[in-house]
Amino acid sequence: MHVQLLTYTPNPEQVVAAAARLCYSSQSGEEIAAAMQEQDTAAFIGRLRQMGHFSTFEHASFTFAIDGVSRALSHQLVRHRLASYSQKSQRYVKENHFSYVVPPSVSRSPQTEEEYRRLMEEIGGLYSRLLEQGVAAEDARYILPNATVTNLIMTMNARSLLNFFQLRCCNRAQWEIRHMAQLMRREVQKVAPALFAQAGPTCESQGICYEGEKCCKKGQVEIRQR
Amino acid sequence: MHVQLLTYTPNPEQVVAAAARLCYSSQSGEEIAAAMQEQDTAAFIGRLRQMGHFSTFEHASFTFAIDGVSRALSHQLVRHRLASYSQKSQRYVKENHFSYVVPPSVSRSPQTEEEYRRLMEEIGGLYSRLLEQGVAAEDARYILPNATVTNLIMTMNARSLLNFFQLRCCNRAQWEIRHMAQLMRREVQKVAPALFAQAGPTCESQGICYEGEKCCKKGQVEIRQR
Amino acid sequence: MHVQLLTYTPNPEQVVAAAARLCYSSQSGEEIAAAMQEQDTAAFIGRLRQMGHFSTFEHASFTFAIDGVSRALSHQLVRHRLASYSQKSQRYVKENHFSYVVPPSVSRSPQTEEEYRRLMEEIGGLYSRLLEQGVAAEDARYILPNATVTNLIMTMNARSLLNFFQLRCCNRAQWEIRHMAQLMRREVQKVAPALFAQAGPTCESQGICYEGEKCCKKGQVEIRQR
Amino acid sequence: MHVQLLTYTPNPEQVVAAAARLCYSSQSGEEIAAAMQEQDTAAFIGRLRQMGHFSTFEHASFTFAIDGVSRALSHQLVRHRLASYSQKSQRYVKENHFSYVVPPSVSRSPQTEEEYRRLMEEIGGLYSRLLEQGVAAEDARYILPNATVTNLIMTMNARSLLNFFQLRCCNRAQWEIRHMAQLMRREVQKVAPALFAQAGPTCESQGICYEGEKCCKKGQVEIRQR
Repeated sequence: MHVQLLTYTPNPEQVVAAAARLCYSSQSGEEIAAAMQEQDTAAFIGRLRQMGHFSTFEHASFTFAIDGVSRALSHQLVRHRLASYSQKSQRYVKENHFSYVVPPSVSRSPQTEEEYRRLMEEIGGLYSRLLEQGVAAEDARYILPNATVTNLIMTMNARSLLNFFQLRCCNRAQWEIRHMAQLMRREVQKVAPALFAQAGPTCESQGICYEGEKCCKKGQVEIRQR
Repeated sequence: MHVQLLTYTPNPEQVVAAAARLCYSSQSGEEIAAAMQEQDTAAFIGRLRQMGHFSTFEHASFTFAIDGVSRALSHQLVRHRLASYSQKSQRYVKENHFSYVVPPSVSRSPQTEEEYRRLMEEIGGLYSRLLEQGVAAEDARYILPNATVTNLIMTMNARSLLNFFQLRCCNRAQWEIRHMAQLMRREVQKVAPALFAQAGPTCESQGICYEGEKCCKKGQVEIRQR
Repeated sequence: MHVQLLTYTPNPEQVVAAAARLCYSSQSGEEIAAAMQEQDTAAFIGRLRQMGHFSTFEHASFTFAIDGVSRALSHQLVRHRLASYSQKSQRYVKENHFSYVVPPSVSRSPQTEEEYRRLMEEIGGLYSRLLEQGVAAEDARYILPNATVTNLIMTMNARSLLNFFQLRCCNRAQWEIRHMAQLMRREVQKVAPALFAQAGPTCESQGICYEGEKCCKKGQVEIRQR
Repeated sequence: MHVQLLTYTPNPEQVVAAAARLCYSSQSGEEIAAAMQEQDTAAFIGRLRQMGHFSTFEHASFTFAIDGVSRALSHQLVRHRLASYSQKSQRYVKENHFSYVVPPSVSRSPQTEEEYRRLMEEIGGLYSRLLEQGVAAEDARYILPNATVTNLIMTMNARSLLNFFQLRCCNRAQWEIRHMAQLMRREVQKVAPALFAQAGPTCESQGICYEGEKCCKKGQVEIRQR
């Protein structure tokens, strides 16, 4: 798996801070924006986070190149609807020599991994024969496994990313997408540390678990319902 | 594949008509709604369609039970973001005896179909062995193919459905999702014939093709660009 | 102000429950739906709420006729983007005898209210003269006040409504939209008591305040940040 | 009115082109992105436009500071839901010396404009007296007119902008928002000429009118329905 932050809104924290200031100011957006370079925005953004003023976080967008993840992951990923996706097409790109993900629980046993890999070989063999027999790639792919590797370019704004990290950095998320979420978080925290200061599951950021179940991580976490 | 219209906004056409009337009336929504039973709404809705006043179509929602489609289809389906989905989970439901879709292009040749089915058997075999060896369902599923059958409950409003039919009833869409879209269209046309009178690809409804390519269906269709 | 629940997804709680069951079942959506009439869904929905499985709540939609609210309110309202709106148009409907909202803080003093009403009269007078002089309604309306009454038909699904009630039933919301939110909540709680059992601000439902400020209502509420 | 393009996704056309290439390539997003600097993307983006592959346009976001527009305009503007807004608050910012927009149809007659301005003065006078009498700004604003000037910071991606320009550059849109849309279009065409090459109403880009009515501009335009 490889996650690269391809591009993002320049000066994301200043843009968010300017948008928030505008709401409570009689200055124009242009005036606020002109002044915003010199500000120390970190503390101000901390307050926005505390006040729950997350609509301002939407002005900063982040675009990732995600390579080498499984189609199992991508099917989960695209359920996040406040985001934009471009994904390698199995209808148009032939997968004769497809790469695949091996779950750690499979590679634990060399023999299991061997069986797993042998099946992948076999799938690849039939895939090629189907193409040779004139079956279109869009139909031959019906035999391709969830493990098949895919590539995506994905854009989310900072508010949507916070929601994504809340759900997918959680121990209850599947290991593969959780790993991807952690890599993404690391990238955005480098360039927008204040926006993503508390990015992650609510047990970390707020001491609350909404999953309705204790995971191993924090025994003391409990659902708070009145 | 089985598509059932599970439920929908009662009197969908009256609701849409009432919403549209409200925009141009000094009557209250309640007054308009009270009068709306007796109206012949079909012609009025035809005019809304002509004027492009589709925001009113959003007030009518339709919920489908979709059974026996492939995960290849569901991965395409959930890319439609203005919709709500609940899908059988491969993390939580074991797939020891999974059903699968066979593309028509595969069953054309009995021998190819035989090979296809044999591979499915083999996948099923290893899947069961993985579970026996203590691999969790969420990881065992990495070997499951795109062909694996899934079930969904899905809700879309009429505007989003029109967009869906435009893209997925088109000959350029894949056969499986096109078939599903046609079944869905048949169901909603029964209960809301005016809303869905011209549901389908733009070559049918407007004589225009946006796909940038002629399909076999309508030789006379061409992109119109000034 | 008048709020009427115009229509909604029939059996909203059964639909939500069926969608949730589907995720964890190998039964088809059709089978689950067929069986769902007899279920006691209230407890099951309570568990979905605890687990945070709110995506299933999206399958139930609710349509309201909202009459006699101010344009100040409607400008706030339409900021909620996961919803559908049809609103009386000030471009196309003439407002010669426009009704208007009087805030309680204004009617507290009879003299202040008198001044307020006199200004409204004056605005109405100039509005009519502008139309007589050939100014189009879409331009004459530039003098109409935020207090001007408007009518809407609005549709939201249950998940979006829960978010709406969380923000707008809160004491920090403006009185007018808070009043409307409370009327809406009363209506949906009649027909879907389990879905909306804990609808309201998080201080009520979870003992947590995200507004970053204590309101008078609950001295004991505090922000929980680690 | 002042419209400034505050910030935007760097190299917006390369990002869109890379996302599109990814769909049809076995190269990784990272490889494609690395190579994308040297490409001539204009022709390629033209083809995406022709094929209707607009999902890729979502990866490029544009943030505007919009100053000196009326609240009549902003109420129309925020109906566009696939966008992010931060707007000067009339609840928190006092409007004692509010600026206001004068429609051209009003200033045509000096006497009409005089009456219009006198009413604005009067509104301003009562607004100040209300504040003095202890009425909160959030209630005093009920008398403020649609003409009152507001400031916004707004973000839309290129796909949403194309939809916005289609509707709001149209002659059937109100003059004020049309003017704003034209200024916005001029700004984005400077920095992303290929993405916005055909931005505007469909009568210009495709020779088709969906408004259901001829405007003066193009007598030859007609609705095409089969």
